[in-house]
Amino acid sequence: MKIYLAGPDVFLPDAAGIGRRKAEICARHGLIGLYPLDNAIGLSARDASLDIFRGNEAMMIEADAIIADLTPFRGPGADAGTVYELGFMAGRGKFCLGYCNDPMLYAERVRKFTTVKKQSGRLADADGLAIEDFGLSDNLMIIHALDLHGCALLTPGQAPADPWHDLTTFEACARLAAERLGCASARASS
Amino acid sequence: MKIYLAGPDVFLPDAAGIGRRKAEICARHGLIGLYPLDNAIGLSARDASLDIFRGNEAMMIEADAIIADLTPFRGPGADAGTVYELGFMAGRGKFCLGYCNDPMLYAERVRKFTTVKKQSGRLADADGLAIEDFGLSDNLMIIHALDLHGCALLTPGQAPADPWHDLTTFEACARLAAERLGCASARASS
Repeated sequence: MKIYLAGPDVFLPDAAGIGRRKAEICARHGLIGLYPLDNAIGLSARDASLDIFRGNEAMMIEADAIIADLTPFRGPGADAGTVYELGFMAGRGKFCLGYCNDPMLYAERVRKFTTVKKQSGRLADADGLAIEDFGLSDNLMIIHALDLHGCALLTPGQAPADPWHDLTTFEACARLAAERLGCASARASS
Repeated sequence: MKIYLAGPDVFLPDAAGIGRRKAEICARHGLIGLYPLDNAIGLSARDASLDIFRGNEAMMIEADAIIADLTPFRGPGADAGTVYELGFMAGRGKFCLGYCNDPMLYAERVRKFTTVKKQSGRLADADGLAIEDFGLSDNLMIIHALDLHGCALLTPGQAPADPWHDLTTFEACARLAAERLGCASARASS
């Protein structure tokens, strides 16, 4: 079973190393991890973006499932590229898993970025736009896509010291993917 | 032709009115606009989120195309729910259109939210995460999904005074959708 490994960790300086670690974890659970191409092609080559898109899309089409790192990125919610990929995979009927290394709820997290007020009986931000207050970790489309098209979002009990490099919750997703997709049993060593 | 009308305008206090205006614009171009259910069900009912998800997903499956409002929302990029829906529609092979009422490029916009530095020859934010610098308006997965699965992102020459209520660029998308999807010619009146 092939798993598309989506997440904003492609933007880290050591992205290639994280990709390798994620692929090794997948292998331990009988899965093949496919890590996006962004880092391999290079983020500064201006004409490379279409190649990255095409490469990532081909990889998603090839994959049976996605594990999306939905840890908040440059704002109160998940990375847009990762969310696009989750939607794409759900749209194609692939098995969807995701994790978020920040255990806070979305409505709580928004308070770190904007003034929150009560307006006509609902939470709103400084611009008057309502804040989803369903007790969920992120936008309901993301959370329920996981609930209905795969496995519920996994979050740690408390935020790890390094949310971009701690792969404990990622490994829990990989284990779940292997169980649910009926993969060959995990090997003892990496 | 049915068009799913995605965007964070569902979070505005006058969302229902905007949905009606968008549907009227669609009708003038021979299209049927489907506006998400969030507002109809109410954002504060804690057990309603799954109903909203199911309703929106059914609407997307019914629609032939999506027009996504990708104007930045609570950060430097598009709303996560909207981006999920764009991905879902692209994954299902639907025709994808989108607009962004902020003409700035992503790499410029990020400067409003974080310190930007040059690191190992590439732009990075305060956390050391690389900033996509392809001269695009948002994450490459969003922008090229439109390029390859519909029509290129539309942006105004300059930001309208009220980016959430100015539907000029939305109407340009509707016109394009009607042309590309071969709809009955636009009626003169709404």
